[in-house]
Formats: sequence, structure tokens, C-alpha cells
Amino acid sequence: MSEYELYYWPGIQGRGEFVRLALELAGIPYRDVARLPEGKDGLKPLMYFLDGKAMGHAPFAPPFLKAGGLVIGQTANILMFLGARHDLAPSDEAGRLWANQLQLTIGDFVAEIHDTHHPVASGLYYEDQIEEAKKRSKDFLKARAPKYLRYFERILARNEAGPAHLIGDRLTYPDLSLFQTLTGLRYGFPRAMAALEKKLPLTVALHDRVHAHPKIAAYLASPRRIAFNEQGLFRHYPELDRPDRK
Amino acid sequence: MSEYELYYWPGIQGRGEFVRLALELAGIPYRDVARLPEGKDGLKPLMYFLDGKAMGHAPFAPPFLKAGGLVIGQTANILMFLGARHDLAPSDEAGRLWANQLQLTIGDFVAEIHDTHHPVASGLYYEDQIEEAKKRSKDFLKARAPKYLRYFERILARNEAGPAHLIGDRLTYPDLSLFQTLTGLRYGFPRAMAALEKKLPLTVALHDRVHAHPKIAAYLASPRRIAFNEQGLFRHYPELDRPDRK
Repeated sequence: MSEYELYYWPGIQGRGEFVRLALELAGIPYRDVARLPEGKDGLKPLMYFLDGKAMGHAPFAPPFLKAGGLVIGQTANILMFLGARHDLAPSDEAGRLWANQLQLTIGDFVAEIHDTHHPVASGLYYEDQIEEAKKRSKDFLKARAPKYLRYFERILARNEAGPAHLIGDRLTYPDLSLFQTLTGLRYGFPRAMAALEKKLPLTVALHDRVHAHPKIAAYLASPRRIAFNEQGLFRHYPELDRPDRK
Repeated sequence: MSEYELYYWPGIQGRGEFVRLALELAGIPYRDVARLPEGKDGLKPLMYFLDGKAMGHAPFAPPFLKAGGLVIGQTANILMFLGARHDLAPSDEAGRLWANQLQLTIGDFVAEIHDTHHPVASGLYYEDQIEEAKKRSKDFLKARAPKYLRYFERILARNEAGPAHLIGDRLTYPDLSLFQTLTGLRYGFPRAMAALEKKLPLTVALHDRVHAHPKIAAYLASPRRIAFNEQGLFRHYPELDRPDRK
């Protein structure tokens, strides 16, 4: 029984991927609606919700998840819902808030990653903001990425249950999101990340642990995993990965 | 008994203001720690948490709220906590998720507002990114601000309990945040907002309703309300409010 429907732009991992990873880890069947053949599925039902034509709670943007009568938008909100329902997060109040806090911080990081290639306008082409993108990427790689990455490294180091996970002694949804973020950064900024990762042994170990999880490994090897590309959130433009060169 | 301690940069409203408005509406006593005289209070205890010296869950950035043994970071997360505890949000699952979803969308909007004056780097001066700020503001006022504002106007229009609130038939914390966002936009972009607001009658009415609420009115008139200024999130730079002029 596939009671969940995920709505996200087809063709890119984007923010939808954070939701997919949680669904895959939990082994929850879901329909990835906009990637199914046009007709009852495809882009049309996604646009139907975005245009506000559906009743109920209209989302501002994808991803959103239809779960029975609920339509839930905002990545961190969807993950909080799935975390509670499918045991991908602590169940006590303090633990739930902490998981949500970490996820929101990853979300802030991801928004800054997006803006490295779109610092002027998300609606304009990269080619029309390339000089600004170089400036923003330079600051991002020098100041922002290290600040975020060292923060998560420290959270791992200080986890009272051990440095294998962000929270407690098992995988929770922020672990999956940190994995995805590191994977995306490696794709986008291979040169810069090779240098930065030297100081991130715990984050790299977490990445490898998530990558090796049977359910995640199976997903990553499946056609359900979309390849990174230059339409998505994480993009590889070599000129942005070399901020010290003119 | 003031069991809550709010930690936020002194001297600006910033993201801390969204939390302050919720605390004020609920009539919850709180200590605004970094604005109190240096010593036991002041900036030092804020930096103590940020430097990761305190035990427990370290926040990435202010605001964060100390509530008994909990230290809660991320604006939307703090508001979700206060919403549940002090009846500033629906108590059922669907309502809580919807409130959080709206708040996160306001948070995305606020991040884009910030980047109008800091499109290249949050750590650099405005004066060092003024040309990029003009480009970003032009797109923001033409595309992004109308898109967000019309979204919230539509959410008000479609509220089954009536257009006076975003959710149900009473004030919830996203109403306060939308009020604050409109107030800040008016400060930052008076010329552009005068034009945009003509199509936002419900949002303007919500703003006025929040502004007139006895607890909020008393707060806004008190010294606890910091004035807008050019160190905060919402800044008034006339050149950014006139994107059509060179």
C-alpha cells in the first residue's frame, strides 16, 4: 500500500531528495508523482497544488507530501512528520526539537549552497550572474561552508551516545540530510571539499556509514536516485570551485 | 517567575523579534539576556553557548531560548515550542504542521529579504556589495516579494474560518511573524511596498489587527521594542527601494 505521494520537480534531486532518503531508509512505499508518466500523474498534479486549486493547505513550493488527508509542505516539516511517524527521530520532546533544530540548520546551509550559483535571482540563469556567483562562492568556501561543517563535526563529537550519529546511538533523519549535503558539496566543489574534509573525520565517517546502510545503498544504486546535474541544488561549475583563481 | 531566557544579538530586532512577539502576546515573562547589563548577563553568556562551551545542544546561531533544562535554537523551532506550550498554535497534528509550514515559509522569505542587502556575503559590509544588492533587490521587488506576499494573501482568503487570520479564528504565531515581516518590509522598501500593498488588503488588515492587539500595542510602545536600523535584518537603503532608477 503506497499511501504517501511525494511531489517534487522531476529531473533533479533538489530538496525533494532529503525526503526521499527518509522514505527509503524507513522502507516506506511512496509514489514520486511528478516523475510518473503524465496523465493522472506527472507535473500536472504538482502544478494543481501549487496553483492553489486544491482544497486545504496550499504549499508555497515543492517538495510536499500527501499523506492521507494531509498535504505537508516545507522539507523540515515533512521530515519532522515522517520522523515521528516512522521512528526516524527521538520520540521525547527535547529530542524532537533537537532533531528539528539540526534539520533547520542544514536547511539554512543548503539555501546558502544554492545561492552560490544564484546569488542575484533564482529566476535568472546562472550565466547571467556568473561574476556575482564567483564572489559569493569565494566567501562561501572560505567562511560559510567551514563554519557550518565544523559545527556539525562538533555536534557529532559531543554526542553523549558517541560520535557515530548526530543524535543518540542510531540513524535519524538529520544524519541522512547531512550525508546528502556532504555528497552534494563533493559534487559541486570537489577541490574545495578535498581540503575541507581533512578536518571533518566524523562527518566523513557518518557519510560512509549512511552510504553503506543496506537500504540507502540499494536506493543509491537504483534508478530512483537521480544523478546530480546542473539544474539542481548542488551544481558543479569548476570556476566556482576555484575562488582563488581569476 | 521568569523561567525563559531569550538569547539574541542586542541592538537589532532581527530574527529574535519573531520570538519576542510570541512571548509578548502570550504574556510570558522572559529575560532578554544579551540586552541586560554585562556581568552575569550581557553578550558573554550568549557567546558561551555559541562557542559550544555549554553542555548539551549547542545552537548554530541566535536566537535561542533557554527553557528550564532545554536550549532551543532556530526561530521556527522556538516558535513551535512556544506555540504548543502557550496555546499560540492549533493543538492537533494537522494544525501544528500547518503552522510550522507557514512559519518556515515566512522564514524563507525573511532570508531572501536579508540577502537583498547582503547578496554576496553576510560577513562583508553592505557598502562592499552595493551593486550586487541593487541587482538582487530589483529581482526581489519584481518577482520574489510579490510571490510570497500574494501567497500569504491567498492563504488568508482561503482560511475556512475567515480571512482575519492565517489559521483558524484566532491569532497564532505565524500571524505575528507575517505582521513583523510586513512591518519590516515597509521600513526597508516604503516606496515599493506602497505599490504592492494595494493588492494585499487581507494582509494589511491582519497587520493592523496584530498592531492593535493590547499586548502587542503595549509592547511596541515600550522600550523593549528596538527600533529598526541599518544593522538589522530589515534595512532601509533608498537606492534598493528604487530598482528602476540607475
